[in-house]
Amino acid sequence: MSTVKLWTDADVEQNPRVKAVFDDIRTTRKSDFVNNMWRALANQPDLLEATWNRLKQVMVAPSALDPLTKELIYLAVSTVNSCSYCLHSHTAAARAKGMTDEQHQDFLSVLTMAMQTNALATAMQVPVDPEFQA
Amino acid sequence: MSTVKLWTDADVEQNPRVKAVFDDIRTTRKSDFVNNMWRALANQPDLLEATWNRLKQVMVAPSALDPLTKELIYLAVSTVNSCSYCLHSHTAAARAKGMTDEQHQDFLSVLTMAMQTNALATAMQVPVDPEFQA
Amino acid sequence: MSTVKLWTDADVEQNPRVKAVFDDIRTTRKSDFVNNMWRALANQPDLLEATWNRLKQVMVAPSALDPLTKELIYLAVSTVNSCSYCLHSHTAAARAKGMTDEQHQDFLSVLTMAMQTNALATAMQVPVDPEFQA
Amino acid sequence: MSTVKLWTDADVEQNPRVKAVFDDIRTTRKSDFVNNMWRALANQPDLLEATWNRLKQVMVAPSALDPLTKELIYLAVSTVNSCSYCLHSHTAAARAKGMTDEQHQDFLSVLTMAMQTNALATAMQVPVDPEFQA
Amino acid sequence: MSTVKLWTDADVEQNPRVKAVFDDIRTTRKSDFVNNMWRALANQPDLLEATWNRLKQVMVAPSALDPLTKELIYLAVSTVNSCSYCLHSHTAAARAKGMTDEQHQDFLSVLTMAMQTNALATAMQVPVDPEFQA
Amino acid sequence: MSTVKLWTDADVEQNPRVKAVFDDIRTTRKSDFVNNMWRALANQPDLLEATWNRLKQVMVAPSALDPLTKELIYLAVSTVNSCSYCLHSHTAAARAKGMTDEQHQDFLSVLTMAMQTNALATAMQVPVDPEFQA
Repeated sequence: MSTVKLWTDADVEQNPRVKAVFDDIRTTRKSDFVNNMWRALANQPDLLEATWNRLKQVMVAPSALDPLTKELIYLAVSTVNSCSYCLHSHTAAARAKGMTDEQHQDFLSVLTMAMQTNALATAMQVPVDPEFQA
Repeated sequence: MSTVKLWTDADVEQNPRVKAVFDDIRTTRKSDFVNNMWRALANQPDLLEATWNRLKQVMVAPSALDPLTKELIYLAVSTVNSCSYCLHSHTAAARAKGMTDEQHQDFLSVLTMAMQTNALATAMQVPVDPEFQA
Repeated sequence: MSTVKLWTDADVEQNPRVKAVFDDIRTTRKSDFVNNMWRALANQPDLLEATWNRLKQVMVAPSALDPLTKELIYLAVSTVNSCSYCLHSHTAAARAKGMTDEQHQDFLSVLTMAMQTNALATAMQVPVDPEFQA
Repeated sequence: MSTVKLWTDADVEQNPRVKAVFDDIRTTRKSDFVNNMWRALANQPDLLEATWNRLKQVMVAPSALDPLTKELIYLAVSTVNSCSYCLHSHTAAARAKGMTDEQHQDFLSVLTMAMQTNALATAMQVPVDPEFQA
Repeated sequence: MSTVKLWTDADVEQNPRVKAVFDDIRTTRKSDFVNNMWRALANQPDLLEATWNRLKQVMVAPSALDPLTKELIYLAVSTVNSCSYCLHSHTAAARAKGMTDEQHQDFLSVLTMAMQTNALATAMQVPVDPEFQA
Repeated sequence: MSTVKLWTDADVEQNPRVKAVFDDIRTTRKSDFVNNMWRALANQPDLLEATWNRLKQVMVAPSALDPLTKELIYLAVSTVNSCSYCLHSHTAAARAKGMTDEQHQDFLSVLTMAMQTNALATAMQVPVDPEFQA
């Protein structure tokens, strides 16, 4: 259960700023479905606008990395941060953007490889090689 | 300064198991340079072998994700885990595998986007939409 | 579901040390409600006493920071640690101590700002300016 | 040592977009000093602009929380994320905004209180009380 | 709800590689019960094999640390990583390996002690004493 | 460099409360060496007393877990929290309490095993088996 109210479509209709963001989400995604993240953020219109506008720019607009790669980076961060909501929403997004079972296995393998070498380098406080600082 | 001894090449010569791993690192990477991570792990031959063998399989062998994508996942994990050594070694690796400045900017943008929405979803304890559970 | 037994009031009656802490919680908070955190800690009487005594001193006694500011620091830590229980209990506490919707929005904005600049400073391993070390 | 180039003032002069942000930082802060965070972000002009503009809005503009409270939230996040750069820069900022030694002690006490109860609630998987979900 | 399919015993029967791992889990643990972790990993046969083989070597085979100590290290890591599944499965494992209530209390006390001194050392950026570097 | 002043022995002489704690540290540890953690905490006498008193009770007094096991739990937490100071001071402490090279290797192996299975359980959001909830 969330610590803030989740806005229904009826609530959204009452607030023009929030409604404008919800309309843009629906138009951009070509779907009527607006997920709970935005229904929670509707309580904070400034933050809702800032977050959606930035997300649209970073995750939706074409850029130097392809959409699936961006979702995998997102999933990696969300795993280490233990964000349950984000893992559900962005695993779905990765699949919608074409992630195959083989790519998912590869992602999980790299993720766990990084987790273990991170812990080793930190536990042993390995000093950075001068070669990496050049 | 590390919490364990860093093995020199002369130390490595004295231990056949460690030497075999160092030889394989040099052959696999086609370079004489062996970075400090392995010089620290040389104190634990079992763990050295297990870590190198798995790394070779996950990060070096061809797989469903391209080498640069794997490095970006690695960097994302290393950032959230705040692993200084890993960030230096794998940023160098990402560049060696062709990461452009535009891709680096994109990586940092997705990373920070994920960090902020992770915090929002967690702070507000947003419940997972049934649509993501299907 | 918890990994330890949650003590009922009837259980508490059987253990004088635990009962003394529960009585003090009720007296200090002027409420009969004792939340699950303490019902879980009741299994470890030493730790129960140490935790409650310290919490009373840090969070309840008047000090240099006002009660709401202390709750916001608590919520910031709980978010990064992804502690679901703590986010529910301390968002309720922050509201009880007067947090407005505008302050909640501000808290979430600062939280996400810190998350993204933390990630940037770490990912790029930005060296500390000498000016900050003075 | 950073994983990206730190831009000198001479470098900044060559890039109008970066120069505009640096000028705004100097004007807003009424100081000629521009810290390394921005000299690292100068490599990514889009991200530099987005980060500075958001920071100015969240941390500099007047809002529902006072400037010192915002710095303490920032420091709490930076501690859990183990961001060395951020702890140095924002402890300096908190002092510049009037943090007393007593407030710093209070901050550290709340921080450690949250760390330990977070760990307890998580380790024992304490279920959220229905009273907090209302 | 998981983000991947959980394999039933009937599913496992259809895949010889997965079945071989499940058989080995049952034989090694002398129990017919195979927990959900492995039913989720069954989607990634390579990763399933690698994870189980390493787990058997590290957690099951006799080594320099006794089985309960290994479970307590596991629980400490799982708490800081906020891994709900791992806390449930390994608290059960620690109990099966003889953890007493007094030892559990001790574990929780050390865990919280480390959490608070970690935060203090990080927040104040305490420099490492030369005595620890020798 | 720390964000607070590190107290010299001459500073300590000027403050009776701080001096009492430093004297107790020296007596308890049977050594004249007082490490930087306490020299940083000297700025906050209340917190210094609370932290030292609790540490003495948890880490020094005999209890249900042996001293080395407690150090290993401490090191596990410190690794995941990426606390450089704590890793240096407590690896030294673990060695002083008899940790062998084989035990260190074992510790690192369990640590990395937990890191990878934590990430897998979280990334796949594996549901807790009813068997673990009994």
